[in-house]
Amino acid sequence: MDSDQITELVEDIAARARRASLELATLPSETKNKFLAALADRLVAESGAIIEANALDLEAAEALELSAPMVERLTFTPERIAAMAEGVRQVASLPDPVGAEIEKLDPPKGFDLRKIRVPMGVIGIIYESRPNVTVDCAVLCLKSGNASILRGGKEAFHSNMKLAEIIRETLAATGISEDAVQLIPTTDRWALNALLKQDKTVHCIIPRGGESLIRFTVENSRIPVIKHYTGVCSVYIDAAADADMAESILINAKCQRPSVCNAAENLIVHQGAAELLPRLAKALHDNGVELRVDAKAKALLLASGLPLTDATEEDFHTEYNDLIISITVVADTAEAVQFINTRGSGHSDAIITGDAESAARFLNGVDSATVYHNASTRFTDGFEFGLGAEIGISTDRLHARGPMGLNELCTYKYVIHGKGEIK
Amino acid sequence: MDSDQITELVEDIAARARRASLELATLPSETKNKFLAALADRLVAESGAIIEANALDLEAAEALELSAPMVERLTFTPERIAAMAEGVRQVASLPDPVGAEIEKLDPPKGFDLRKIRVPMGVIGIIYESRPNVTVDCAVLCLKSGNASILRGGKEAFHSNMKLAEIIRETLAATGISEDAVQLIPTTDRWALNALLKQDKTVHCIIPRGGESLIRFTVENSRIPVIKHYTGVCSVYIDAAADADMAESILINAKCQRPSVCNAAENLIVHQGAAELLPRLAKALHDNGVELRVDAKAKALLLASGLPLTDATEEDFHTEYNDLIISITVVADTAEAVQFINTRGSGHSDAIITGDAESAARFLNGVDSATVYHNASTRFTDGFEFGLGAEIGISTDRLHARGPMGLNELCTYKYVIHGKGEIK
Repeated sequence: MDSDQITELVEDIAARARRASLELATLPSETKNKFLAALADRLVAESGAIIEANALDLEAAEALELSAPMVERLTFTPERIAAMAEGVRQVASLPDPVGAEIEKLDPPKGFDLRKIRVPMGVIGIIYESRPNVTVDCAVLCLKSGNASILRGGKEAFHSNMKLAEIIRETLAATGISEDAVQLIPTTDRWALNALLKQDKTVHCIIPRGGESLIRFTVENSRIPVIKHYTGVCSVYIDAAADADMAESILINAKCQRPSVCNAAENLIVHQGAAELLPRLAKALHDNGVELRVDAKAKALLLASGLPLTDATEEDFHTEYNDLIISITVVADTAEAVQFINTRGSGHSDAIITGDAESAARFLNGVDSATVYHNASTRFTDGFEFGLGAEIGISTDRLHARGPMGLNELCTYKYVIHGKGEIK
Repeated sequence: MDSDQITELVEDIAARARRASLELATLPSETKNKFLAALADRLVAESGAIIEANALDLEAAEALELSAPMVERLTFTPERIAAMAEGVRQVASLPDPVGAEIEKLDPPKGFDLRKIRVPMGVIGIIYESRPNVTVDCAVLCLKSGNASILRGGKEAFHSNMKLAEIIRETLAATGISEDAVQLIPTTDRWALNALLKQDKTVHCIIPRGGESLIRFTVENSRIPVIKHYTGVCSVYIDAAADADMAESILINAKCQRPSVCNAAENLIVHQGAAELLPRLAKALHDNGVELRVDAKAKALLLASGLPLTDATEEDFHTEYNDLIISITVVADTAEAVQFINTRGSGHSDAIITGDAESAARFLNGVDSATVYHNASTRFTDGFEFGLGAEIGISTDRLHARGPMGLNELCTYKYVIHGKGEIK
């Protein structure tokens, strides 16, 4: 296909998605849940066919020079398919967000005015690597009444095509328009360009992938984008911190799963807790963490004999996604707040303290999506927040901030019942 | 200034706004209200100086070939300045949106998790023509804890500069950072380009102006934009409509102020209400409205002797902002819904009916920001909704849809109080 043909294809997909979205917006919960249950069954029943399609991607992986962890994430097994199907059943069991009354307003003229949750319309999801995202995103969009346009990466092309086929057959079998979920059937970069220009029919773009994919999307999209950048999170140990709690939360935040966005990258210690620092540094070192220290932290740790690396300013802005931590010392909570607001990424930051006033200063002052008092940053997650499911963690401030569940895939409308009121 | 110097200037303005926004986020309500009260007084006291600066713009208006209505909107009088000051006092009297608890969540691990309203940070406002927007937007942003960067049009340059000077002097006198409100001191187009690239420091752009200004903003911005496009609104007269109510609401929606976005542009009549159409058409004609009719409407109106114009398909997509209306006839409510969803702009649409089932079908099915049952579309407005104030009416679906008040200028953060919880 040449670029004109791809543009035409994408325009047609977007127009069909928009028509389907108007049907989805008023679909009863029972129909949506019937589809989800049927899809879960169908995925398990088709495990063999999914694994066959997946084998084509795995064959191609070598030519694409994918790293071992990427191949691992790409691989389907019967167990992984069963887990994916279980995820679909869980979405079916969640309450339907559509139609809920968000607020009853009090207009001066006295007519009945309510703010009601409704689907956005058409959501474009742009993702890389893991093919289970195809199913995860399709079902979250559908449950929230949205049509979805999926644009997966070339490394998972055959797996994605097979999953999309199963989804669409199940939609048709349940009496829902097949156009409710569409996968763009080409990985040509031009298709992404074309999708990002469909601002008359597509209402929101969610890129799920690395920073360069998100940057490309933001720079080329006419459609609003909800960004999911990664996290530079800090743990701040206040003067009044309980020593055991400080160690336990710090080690959990840094080490339990260092590769994720809500893991800690920076440790900030109040000078009044200076005597705690050697203990914390030893615990980090014992857990395999490399210590990068500024001059103040270094002075306090020299006697410990622990291996230390000098931290640069750049280190405190860096998401390592690895067993490395940057350490600094501050004079007070105000300085910690300032440190985080100028170096962190506004994702998740924690204070450990027994001092309520210091906690309040931190929680108010730190301009991040999630702020913690005496708990690990690792809880920033849709399931841990009780949202039931998660399409991602927004690092944006408009529309959705932090974990995004079904409610965050919706917008609202104002509904007015009058008695003939005129202005 | 060359383009590099302008870029440097705008980057500096944005960085200073970001720093000021962190201060504003925790500013007590009393300080913000003290500033607003002082500003209202100051505007009245400086009326003479404002009118002097305004005179320079009015002198230049001729060279810019401004139309008479544009010159009218540009002109300051002591009365208009007093009204502007009164608007500032009203904003002072509104509740502070910052810090309100939006929701208490129920996370599985049981820690205390609340969603709290907080300012967005830095908001860029791009506007044309009326200089009072400088004051309106600055005070709404400030009350909601946001720093603002204002970019007015060249036709109001001197007025805007004077107003910004008064605002900044009043900020300084109240002990708030002057950088909380900054006007870009050049109307060079390059400054707008530069502003739209400051996505590290500016969090939201609100363009207030014509369609071409909004399009330019969307196509060039890396910062999320909340669009304020205009409205193609419909009034649908159902079979079960009360005749007097139908006429009263239709005339109000079309004629009370035809130049605004919530005025009706399309009239849709159920075939079961066909006998009502001549009466409605006559009332419109008597109010000076030109009637543009499709074939079905024409057939029903031929006998009336009223002057009729043939409507094109384009007419039903057009915002006239004038005393013109397009008229069609439909078989049922489902067709009316379909007509609106494919031709309207998703702004405000009304059904007039005594039939609750038909009303429910319309209110659910029409995919617009505001849907009315038995009331005029003219109520789509922040004040009429009881929001107290309005920065505009969003035609977007993300973040804010419909009238935007102080709450809609805010985002939220999640605040967690734990007892040492780890994952």
